[in-house]
Amino acid sequence: MSDPVETIDETAEAAPSVDVPAQLIADIVEALLARDTAGLLALFEELHPADAADAIEQLTWEQQVLLVELAPELLTGPVLAELVEETRADIAGVLEPRHLAEAIQGLDSDDMTMIVEELDEAKREAVLAELSEADRIQLETSLAFEEDTAGRLMQREFVAAPHFWNVGHTIDHMRKAGEDLPYLFFEIFIVDESFKPIGVVPVSRLMRTKREVPLSELMEPNHVIIRPEIDQEEAAYLFEKYHLISAPVVDEDGRLSGMLTVDDMVDVIQEENTEDLYALAGVNDASLADTVFSSVKSRAPWLLVNLGTAVLASGVIALYDDAIAQLVALAVLMPIVASMGGNAGTQALAVAVRSIASRDLTVSNSMRVIWREFAAGAVNGLIFAVVMGLVAGLWFQNAALAWVIAAAMVINLACAGLAGILVPLGLKRFGADPAVASSVFVTTVTDVVGFFAFLGLGAMVLL
Amino acid sequence: MSDPVETIDETAEAAPSVDVPAQLIADIVEALLARDTAGLLALFEELHPADAADAIEQLTWEQQVLLVELAPELLTGPVLAELVEETRADIAGVLEPRHLAEAIQGLDSDDMTMIVEELDEAKREAVLAELSEADRIQLETSLAFEEDTAGRLMQREFVAAPHFWNVGHTIDHMRKAGEDLPYLFFEIFIVDESFKPIGVVPVSRLMRTKREVPLSELMEPNHVIIRPEIDQEEAAYLFEKYHLISAPVVDEDGRLSGMLTVDDMVDVIQEENTEDLYALAGVNDASLADTVFSSVKSRAPWLLVNLGTAVLASGVIALYDDAIAQLVALAVLMPIVASMGGNAGTQALAVAVRSIASRDLTVSNSMRVIWREFAAGAVNGLIFAVVMGLVAGLWFQNAALAWVIAAAMVINLACAGLAGILVPLGLKRFGADPAVASSVFVTTVTDVVGFFAFLGLGAMVLL
Repeated sequence: MSDPVETIDETAEAAPSVDVPAQLIADIVEALLARDTAGLLALFEELHPADAADAIEQLTWEQQVLLVELAPELLTGPVLAELVEETRADIAGVLEPRHLAEAIQGLDSDDMTMIVEELDEAKREAVLAELSEADRIQLETSLAFEEDTAGRLMQREFVAAPHFWNVGHTIDHMRKAGEDLPYLFFEIFIVDESFKPIGVVPVSRLMRTKREVPLSELMEPNHVIIRPEIDQEEAAYLFEKYHLISAPVVDEDGRLSGMLTVDDMVDVIQEENTEDLYALAGVNDASLADTVFSSVKSRAPWLLVNLGTAVLASGVIALYDDAIAQLVALAVLMPIVASMGGNAGTQALAVAVRSIASRDLTVSNSMRVIWREFAAGAVNGLIFAVVMGLVAGLWFQNAALAWVIAAAMVINLACAGLAGILVPLGLKRFGADPAVASSVFVTTVTDVVGFFAFLGLGAMVLL
Repeated sequence: MSDPVETIDETAEAAPSVDVPAQLIADIVEALLARDTAGLLALFEELHPADAADAIEQLTWEQQVLLVELAPELLTGPVLAELVEETRADIAGVLEPRHLAEAIQGLDSDDMTMIVEELDEAKREAVLAELSEADRIQLETSLAFEEDTAGRLMQREFVAAPHFWNVGHTIDHMRKAGEDLPYLFFEIFIVDESFKPIGVVPVSRLMRTKREVPLSELMEPNHVIIRPEIDQEEAAYLFEKYHLISAPVVDEDGRLSGMLTVDDMVDVIQEENTEDLYALAGVNDASLADTVFSSVKSRAPWLLVNLGTAVLASGVIALYDDAIAQLVALAVLMPIVASMGGNAGTQALAVAVRSIASRDLTVSNSMRVIWREFAAGAVNGLIFAVVMGLVAGLWFQNAALAWVIAAAMVINLACAGLAGILVPLGLKRFGADPAVASSVFVTTVTDVVGFFAFLGLGAMVLL
């Protein structure tokens, strides 16, 4: 027999790589170009599926196609599950249905569902036809739940025990079930006679308790029982809040039907964070794997909206074209007022969107936070009124102009604070995502208010 | 004996609350104002520590002080551990050192460290003096690691077994150790003779394996062994990538000294996501619990930087004041070019920052992504050149002006795409956080390029 300690130590030293080494990518590309299948297989042999997926993501699309052609066996179920969605969808598009069906068979039901749901209609049918009856039925049940719900995300492999069993029964049963159990599980769900979850026993707890203790004495209440129709974001929030490792999912009659696990929730949390960040930046659903065309497609709509609001702001300026013609300093300074307002609004907005996502901003404290944002905006407005008043006064040697820009700064920064908190709260009130479109609304407010305040006051005072 | 099933079912139904009910907060405030300690204790009695913490966070500072005065016993260790940092620091400031020391004694070492590290010098000394010698030494060891490192975050309670034990030994040992084991654990770390981690056995695996199987046969290699000095963000990334539940932390000699767990990593992930979002929005370290003063303090520095860049952009406009005086339409339209560039730059920036954070953007693919961002910017520039050319031409009945704004749009959006990717990559290259300050740099580029291109071309072509 080989010495397992030795082997393991080596793997352990090679493994904790945060980034895929550039050398590995270079070697893979070289093997691809040389059509060296054996070399390719050797390069991937020692990689964790997550590292293999990372390496594949670094290849160009042409290289990925070549990889599929030379060594489709590298695209195992676990590697497919680790790929980012766009790359996985592209690669699944060129894999044979039979290969796909074989690759996903050993996966947990949640990963299997994720891969199949991304296939196009024809491919999905072909893959389903290659699967066993049991897998097919399970998949179809999962796919019946809406996208991004707990039902889609749950795995159907879990361990449950009736509350009247004791520790000894449970351990004996698990030893007997052996390989039929999920590959990994951390908690045993305790169910009543009608298979409704009534508690949970961490495996570590079971392990250190005497055989004769009944599960009903050992179990803790379920802090969370998840209904399959809830949004994945809500499920992830519950995991985060209660520090859960796994949670039971029930069907409409309250019977245990699946389980969510924390590693999937970590992915959901990252997905939702990315969505929020992109929504604030005005990008739809982007990925690094995007082509130029899909990048344009995901950004142009928001640029169009921005163009509309920019033209609106220009309309405000056009109202004061006479004033500008008489005093060009107004045109020189007006972008400063708008830019400071936009910046202050974005600051308030980021804090608000984050606080709404983390459920810290609620009905009970929203009045207090609205007031704080208004006050913080006004105070910053006063500070930068002084600074900008001095700058403008010295630059253009015009005291009245200094007073005008100072006043416009206070007005615009106070409005920016208000808009930064009221826009996302308003979107949420109407059931919309508080991050989507909110920065466009906020900068529209700060542009329009900024130009109106500065040019309007300027026209009144200076001409 | 009571019927545990009944009790548990009730709790389970009451518990999965995403938000703290507004009614509960109202009741708590009422009890506080009436100085009704018994009522207060009753309201908190059934709450999970996470819900109790959420409720406390919804109170005003005056109400929180009153709560500490009336019922300090509500601030148990677990409740303190669940509070957001700012609220916890404020409340710890008004709690007696003796109470704090008692409250944290039962906590895992990572939570204990988190609470103590936030105390001011004097309070920390007083609390340390109240702790047992063992706790104090452990705390001081943890505090010796730098903030935001794996060493600070690890807990010192874990379960390890020598590789030459078999399943039976291990289970018997754990039964005997009983209450001395950590409250929850999911994996057993396997160590060699010098206590170096060489593998891991999930508890569920141990449970379903025959007693005589040696651990060395059962264990899987450690994909990840964490050194205590690495940044918490890197540790969290490893958890995310390899779907870890726990991971061993070693000392400088490679000996097992602690453990990181996934629930703490979820908190780190959220912390880092918030930091990135705030960095992009130009907010330092904000919290919903902030006062007006601290909000101003966390935002004014970035507003000042923004003011500097806005004045710089105004300087560009001032170069063309003659042109503007002759053709005011230039002043009316110029903010559109700048705004579209800023927007396109922010889009590219958000995708880049996210891709760097998720380690998808690397040395191997950065040239490809830079090209894509430039091309996507140029294509969007062409699209909006046509749109804006038409709008400007119709608005001002001036074909030359239409051509000028169209050309400026292409130039600025292509530069925006480039700036959006090159600025964060450049910051990263120089070891800086790619999110911090990057949006200021990008909008400076798009403002300056936008005004130069539009006004410069306008002055050349139109006058």
